Amino acid sequence: MRQRPTEASWRQSAYDIIFEADTSAGRWFDIGLLIAILASITVIALETVPEYQSDATWMRRLIIAEQVLTGLFTVEYALRLWCTRHPIRYALSFWGIIDLLSILPSYAPLILGESSHSFVILRSIRLLRVFRIMKLWRMMNDAEELSSAIWRARNKVVVFLAVLLVAVTISGTLMYHVEAVLPGANSPDGTGRTSQFTSIPQSMYWAIVTMTTVGYGDVVPKTTPGKLIAAALILLGYSLIIVPTGFVSAELSGTKADRTDETLDDTVCQACGSKEHHVDARFCDQCGGLL
Amino acid sequence: MRQRPTEASWRQSAYDIIFEADTSAGRWFDIGLLIAILASITVIALETVPEYQSDATWMRRLIIAEQVLTGLFTVEYALRLWCTRHPIRYALSFWGIIDLLSILPSYAPLILGESSHSFVILRSIRLLRVFRIMKLWRMMNDAEELSSAIWRARNKVVVFLAVLLVAVTISGTLMYHVEAVLPGANSPDGTGRTSQFTSIPQSMYWAIVTMTTVGYGDVVPKTTPGKLIAAALILLGYSLIIVPTGFVSAELSGTKADRTDETLDDTVCQACGSKEHHVDARFCDQCGGLL
Amino acid sequence: MRQRPTEASWRQSAYDIIFEADTSAGRWFDIGLLIAILASITVIALETVPEYQSDATWMRRLIIAEQVLTGLFTVEYALRLWCTRHPIRYALSFWGIIDLLSILPSYAPLILGESSHSFVILRSIRLLRVFRIMKLWRMMNDAEELSSAIWRARNKVVVFLAVLLVAVTISGTLMYHVEAVLPGANSPDGTGRTSQFTSIPQSMYWAIVTMTTVGYGDVVPKTTPGKLIAAALILLGYSLIIVPTGFVSAELSGTKADRTDETLDDTVCQACGSKEHHVDARFCDQCGGLL
Amino acid sequence: MRQRPTEASWRQSAYDIIFEADTSAGRWFDIGLLIAILASITVIALETVPEYQSDATWMRRLIIAEQVLTGLFTVEYALRLWCTRHPIRYALSFWGIIDLLSILPSYAPLILGESSHSFVILRSIRLLRVFRIMKLWRMMNDAEELSSAIWRARNKVVVFLAVLLVAVTISGTLMYHVEAVLPGANSPDGTGRTSQFTSIPQSMYWAIVTMTTVGYGDVVPKTTPGKLIAAALILLGYSLIIVPTGFVSAELSGTKADRTDETLDDTVCQACGSKEHHVDARFCDQCGGLL
Repeated sequence: MRQRPTEASWRQSAYDIIFEADTSAGRWFDIGLLIAILASITVIALETVPEYQSDATWMRRLIIAEQVLTGLFTVEYALRLWCTRHPIRYALSFWGIIDLLSILPSYAPLILGESSHSFVILRSIRLLRVFRIMKLWRMMNDAEELSSAIWRARNKVVVFLAVLLVAVTISGTLMYHVEAVLPGANSPDGTGRTSQFTSIPQSMYWAIVTMTTVGYGDVVPKTTPGKLIAAALILLGYSLIIVPTGFVSAELSGTKADRTDETLDDTVCQACGSKEHHVDARFCDQCGGLL
Repeated sequence: MRQRPTEASWRQSAYDIIFEADTSAGRWFDIGLLIAILASITVIALETVPEYQSDATWMRRLIIAEQVLTGLFTVEYALRLWCTRHPIRYALSFWGIIDLLSILPSYAPLILGESSHSFVILRSIRLLRVFRIMKLWRMMNDAEELSSAIWRARNKVVVFLAVLLVAVTISGTLMYHVEAVLPGANSPDGTGRTSQFTSIPQSMYWAIVTMTTVGYGDVVPKTTPGKLIAAALILLGYSLIIVPTGFVSAELSGTKADRTDETLDDTVCQACGSKEHHVDARFCDQCGGLL
Repeated sequence: MRQRPTEASWRQSAYDIIFEADTSAGRWFDIGLLIAILASITVIALETVPEYQSDATWMRRLIIAEQVLTGLFTVEYALRLWCTRHPIRYALSFWGIIDLLSILPSYAPLILGESSHSFVILRSIRLLRVFRIMKLWRMMNDAEELSSAIWRARNKVVVFLAVLLVAVTISGTLMYHVEAVLPGANSPDGTGRTSQFTSIPQSMYWAIVTMTTVGYGDVVPKTTPGKLIAAALILLGYSLIIVPTGFVSAELSGTKADRTDETLDDTVCQACGSKEHHVDARFCDQCGGLL
Repeated sequence: MRQRPTEASWRQSAYDIIFEADTSAGRWFDIGLLIAILASITVIALETVPEYQSDATWMRRLIIAEQVLTGLFTVEYALRLWCTRHPIRYALSFWGIIDLLSILPSYAPLILGESSHSFVILRSIRLLRVFRIMKLWRMMNDAEELSSAIWRARNKVVVFLAVLLVAVTISGTLMYHVEAVLPGANSPDGTGRTSQFTSIPQSMYWAIVTMTTVGYGDVVPKTTPGKLIAAALILLGYSLIIVPTGFVSAELSGTKADRTDETLDDTVCQACGSKEHHVDARFCDQCGGLL
């Protein structure tokens, strides 16, 4: 791309296409980027499947696809750097770092060398490419309400997590005691126990899996008192866990109610300038003047 | 059925019975159709049970029942075509296609021949008969509110699915890394790993099963760091997944609120200009003037 | 209990104690009955535990406890019949039948004989004693709001169950096709398949267990396309299943809102007698008279 | 700590730091205590992990950490006793007992002696140290709303638990009958049954695990009628269990609505007698008179 007299206008239209979604070209750019991100994630995911790893033909295809996509993301990153007015500011911004992280791990073999002993480290680094999915956020304009609802409910979510932590710790210790310590009374050295509640952290893992109603079934009570206490804890945990659901629900209903429940309107009093009068007020409730 | 001078009136009453549910005959037709659909689905389902497949007597019974039901649906389809004014328009409508699809797969053996090599293809086609269940939709008059609530919440559901996709991709990659890559550090060729997180797609399957609190337990973390991260992801996922529940709940509460708020309407008093009077008010409640 | 001149008053106070919960004696009777019901359920449950069944001492104790409790319930039933004014009407009422069913199965051995060949029938009949738990309902005065909320939401619950039935049928058939039919293409006689989706009813059982997020894990997809489709169905199912939760929630919020949202008050217009005026109305909105 | 003339002021500032969180020092004390509690819980949990138990070096480190933390909690308890005005009242208060329980079990070996035969008892007592997590409650100022919401919904939660108990008892007995009694018809002595529903308590455990959608999968129906009834019970149970979620949600929405409704207060205008003015209104919005 040679530099011409009209470089500024070129740069401006590139900026409009890449950073804005208002124009037709901008929307097509966004759709193309979306497809590239999803294709890239699919390629990264398929590269780890054993069936494809042992098949040289497929691996070659996947590596070529990966190289093409990395090339595209590199061009995109270069274009973004070129067309923005403050390249440094962009490069250090959240999106700049995400964009850089989405291409850098693919170049790791060139930098570290493809020697066998660095295989695991390489693999770890290259998995970072999956953060390309973060580029999707930029397209979610409707996510505002979702994130603001989560943000408003953050205190309650923290309190809830603290309550859950207390419940999980006590439940886990109780179940460990009932399932692993008590039946071990006959074997004082602690051997020969077959309980799946092998330690308190394991029991706490069980408590989290159970209280969130995930219930894998990899750790389950075996003894009768264990089952009895587990059943009681499940019921208590269930009663506990429905509360934050209600909180978020209430928070969102509240937002909605605030918007629809317009008992106060925006009429401005011409005498004193105050706003938000009662919807059927005839006189300003701040200065007594006729509205 | 011989054609008579009164064919138009015959056609009209057939139309009333088949397409409308207002008359007593129409309601009985609907109930009969409902029973036929449910019986047909039951027959299709039972035909696949190994116990019945190996029992010739039962299979003959099921095949006869299937043939009778297919005959009934064929007659119903022919009647619908005959009594409607625009047979082509009906045949190409959503319900026309559903009605055709509910009989066509049963005639597949006649068209393709019952030879053994086409067994699997045949089986696939004949399973399409299960779409007869779609005929049930026609009877659900109360489903309006349900589908409209889902429709209104569609943007939020799409955003939620996108957020979940991001969360699932990152969680899956993280768990794959912790459970399969890191413990494999001692076996650089990647063999000998016993982790159930064999690939990123498998890990993403785990993440979906876990975050929706289904929790089959066919893929579970085995290592201690894996369990630690899984527990953290479960808690984060749970905090994330309660949000859309709240959204739909709020959306539905909103609908309800809108309906109860309509006790006030927007009639303007011609004497004093005040609005939002009681819906059945005849006089303005601000100045006493006639509305 | 000898008959005296004051039998009517005896009967009345027995009625007050047994049928009403207003007096102190009535409350104690209710608490005693509650304990007897829970003890009886515990005894019935323990009688089926293999450890107790093989232990003659425990079985004797349990049988004695059962006989004492049956005696108490028989006395209670006789007293209820005696003190009510219309014994026949009580005997044929819902509670009368529940009370009879809670004692009759215990007398089954006397009627049918304790011979060994009737063991299974006897066992089936005696398990009916568990319906004694239904006697608990009588004590739940606070259950009104719960049952009325369920009652008001019944249409929506029926629609929801119909929608779920359609979703379960289609999901089940799809998964059966993907997991059991397609991989069987190499074995045309259908043998040698190891899929857990052995038939459509089994697949529908999987779909119900999955969509309600129970997720036992006894039936799980094994093939890669099966897992892909299962993940998609879980997400769709989850999006579907949060809707009725929202419905009931909205129904209950609505009830609450109706009660608290008093924008209309109960001022009665002295001129025309109409009620429910706007809270800050100064004139009756029905006749224009000053309130 | 020598007694000086300014002991009272010392005591006062210690009280401010330890019992209040308003000052900067008080906040740092709280953060330090939080870290100490979490570290202590982590140490207790790690002491039970078999890998660490068999490693003498790690066990020594953990025991030292535990002794240091117990020392800190002992100093904290002594300081609290010293700086409060009514040491007895504090010692007998809820927090006093929690604080004592968090140090006492660590001193159990000194009191009971570390002999091997008291190992299990010791272990049970020392696990009580986990109640240190209860000290966290003191820091949760935001938990008010959560606990008040649970408190207000307590009646409904009790009713719900009673309904669930009835549902669980009936479901459990039904499944026991279908899975264990009926297939046993051929083996009248009850032997040779392979059902996982070995007894009614076991079946009730299954019902609780299923109805709360935890679904471990350690107890699942094996027979076809068992699966059919289980599927029906899951759907009924799911319809039942979404109700209390709605209750709590509605209760919380109600609280929120009550709060937002308070933009209108009950001030009565002395000129025209109108009520429900805007909370910061100075003039009546109906007649313009001063409030």
